[in-house]
Amino acid sequence: MQAIAVENGDDRPVVVEVERPDPAPGEALVRTLRVGVDGTDHEVIAGSHGGPPAGDDHLVLGHEAVGVVEDPGDTRFAEGDVVVPTVRRPPNGPNEYFVRGEPDMAPEGEYHERGIVGKHGFMAEYFTSPEEHLVSVSPSVAERGFLVEPLSVAEKALELATASRSSFTWEPESAIVLGNGSLGLLTLAMLRERSDFDRLYCLGRRDRPDPTIDIIEDLGATYVDSRETPVSEVADEHEPMDFVFEATGYAKHAFETIEALAPNGVGALLGVPGPWEFEIDGGALHEEFVLHNKALVGSVNSNVRHFEAAAETLGSLPEPFLDALVTGVYDLDGFEAAFDDDDTTIKTAVQFSAYEERR
Amino acid sequence: MQAIAVENGDDRPVVVEVERPDPAPGEALVRTLRVGVDGTDHEVIAGSHGGPPAGDDHLVLGHEAVGVVEDPGDTRFAEGDVVVPTVRRPPNGPNEYFVRGEPDMAPEGEYHERGIVGKHGFMAEYFTSPEEHLVSVSPSVAERGFLVEPLSVAEKALELATASRSSFTWEPESAIVLGNGSLGLLTLAMLRERSDFDRLYCLGRRDRPDPTIDIIEDLGATYVDSRETPVSEVADEHEPMDFVFEATGYAKHAFETIEALAPNGVGALLGVPGPWEFEIDGGALHEEFVLHNKALVGSVNSNVRHFEAAAETLGSLPEPFLDALVTGVYDLDGFEAAFDDDDTTIKTAVQFSAYEERR
Repeated sequence: MQAIAVENGDDRPVVVEVERPDPAPGEALVRTLRVGVDGTDHEVIAGSHGGPPAGDDHLVLGHEAVGVVEDPGDTRFAEGDVVVPTVRRPPNGPNEYFVRGEPDMAPEGEYHERGIVGKHGFMAEYFTSPEEHLVSVSPSVAERGFLVEPLSVAEKALELATASRSSFTWEPESAIVLGNGSLGLLTLAMLRERSDFDRLYCLGRRDRPDPTIDIIEDLGATYVDSRETPVSEVADEHEPMDFVFEATGYAKHAFETIEALAPNGVGALLGVPGPWEFEIDGGALHEEFVLHNKALVGSVNSNVRHFEAAAETLGSLPEPFLDALVTGVYDLDGFEAAFDDDDTTIKTAVQFSAYEERR
Repeated sequence: MQAIAVENGDDRPVVVEVERPDPAPGEALVRTLRVGVDGTDHEVIAGSHGGPPAGDDHLVLGHEAVGVVEDPGDTRFAEGDVVVPTVRRPPNGPNEYFVRGEPDMAPEGEYHERGIVGKHGFMAEYFTSPEEHLVSVSPSVAERGFLVEPLSVAEKALELATASRSSFTWEPESAIVLGNGSLGLLTLAMLRERSDFDRLYCLGRRDRPDPTIDIIEDLGATYVDSRETPVSEVADEHEPMDFVFEATGYAKHAFETIEALAPNGVGALLGVPGPWEFEIDGGALHEEFVLHNKALVGSVNSNVRHFEAAAETLGSLPEPFLDALVTGVYDLDGFEAAFDDDDTTIKTAVQFSAYEERR
């Protein structure tokens, strides 16, 4: 079967011929529908993140997949079920994090990530997966099921942030998403759907006209141009934020978030920037942190519970938002376009087979 | 009656004569037993924090008090009850934070703090308080009841930190307290009492022989000398910490805490350092925060629930620890000694009247 992979030492994805996998006991064989592309894929392709399974000369890409069960084997699934796979897999047999269903909390070395590090991904005509790493989604969202994985990452971050405020009465009204990439926009739509927040903001650095600004405003949120209003000035220029969701990977934002927060607010950090030294007023930030009971939570990956919540959320997001968000779905023939990354691209996917609802 | 106050423009506490307060409806009159001294008092005396009630030329000091109900008025208390007052009071009639019993979450401007800012403290022969701001404590801890307030601050910080880890399975084993002042040592004893932690550490910068190092080791904890092992190297030199409790007010510690934490760990910040610019590797810290699901929570003050938990905890702390911690209790005659602050002083209090258990 055909797969999209990056070969060792290469810095672009290519189509490779690989063997179609056989499901082991406890596994289902899944026919791939679509697989999304995100920033992590670009990092993997560039060689700055992750790597292939030990001994392999290539890594099959893709961690945002949706497919249809082709052969359920002895799993709980039925042929034709629409499923989304989670990303992390135990590297050397199950460890405590996987046993309790929390692989997202496993430290480095205690997991592989399909399509990212140590294990081939889902950008292939078929994949297999143990049933515990597959989540059912409604056929109505089959074609957009590749958005479940990124949404699940936002669900987990919101869950961690909310938990951090659970020992007192927290009634958030304002939230800002830092970053107008696909994760930022999905998160903004999720927060709007939750309707816990009366006022939403989204920060980017784009000139109008711009499709992401249109999406932000169509969601009823306020666009904040970081070139005019840095994160450190958001509280003064707009309002102090009860919740900040950082999805820029710009390290200064992690610390400026403390200034953007309202008293008793929480910032969820999701970016992975790498080393960068700079000066901060650490004393003022420390004091502000303490005197106003602020919190920062780092969040990475997600588990089955978050995937299930994300599948629910996806079904409730407005159609026009989803239409505007997904700027391209490409067949294997023209798959390269899915990896383009310019200002007109928001979210893309590669389609391996079309979804046909069973009657 | 006599009280200990700092007069405007002065930088040392003096005995002043003030009127004995009359309890209003809903208030009790309390005969003061003892009032503790802490770093905040020193800041208030130096003029770097807080200030007197509007229009007053002095501030009666003291926010760590214990007393005996002299006149219960129409409150739920009985004459002779041992009580500890909380610190925050509504500045202009009740606001939402006080109404729901969470004045510790009120932002600046929404509270006064007795003995610190806007309202006279408890260093007087008598004080009055609305009953909702008084907590009963066991007569068995009456003489050490001035430790309930600082312990309540630690209780709140631990509660916030634990809440932040409540959305997943968190089984902490290691904890380090940054700071060997009285709050740090009380927290260390509290953590030992909780017995959730198998291994405890406490960081200071003192040479042996030193009474705080003796206390740390008598509690079964490991002393970490920050001059030999900076916070950023604690994980490598000892072990990554599931919980970090920062009680130094040294701003670099707030950020080095991220490095000291184990995956999925949480740091509680309590220091209030004021402006100080320095360089950090913000990119590496941001990345570490995210990839290992770490959290930082700022925590200030405490509410009735935390005072009640602290009163319980106080009753369970080992006698030899408490004896070593309280290095001096001084009568009004020699009260100045309670404000000495050298390496042999750990925790001091001023005694206004002796406790005599009723028969």
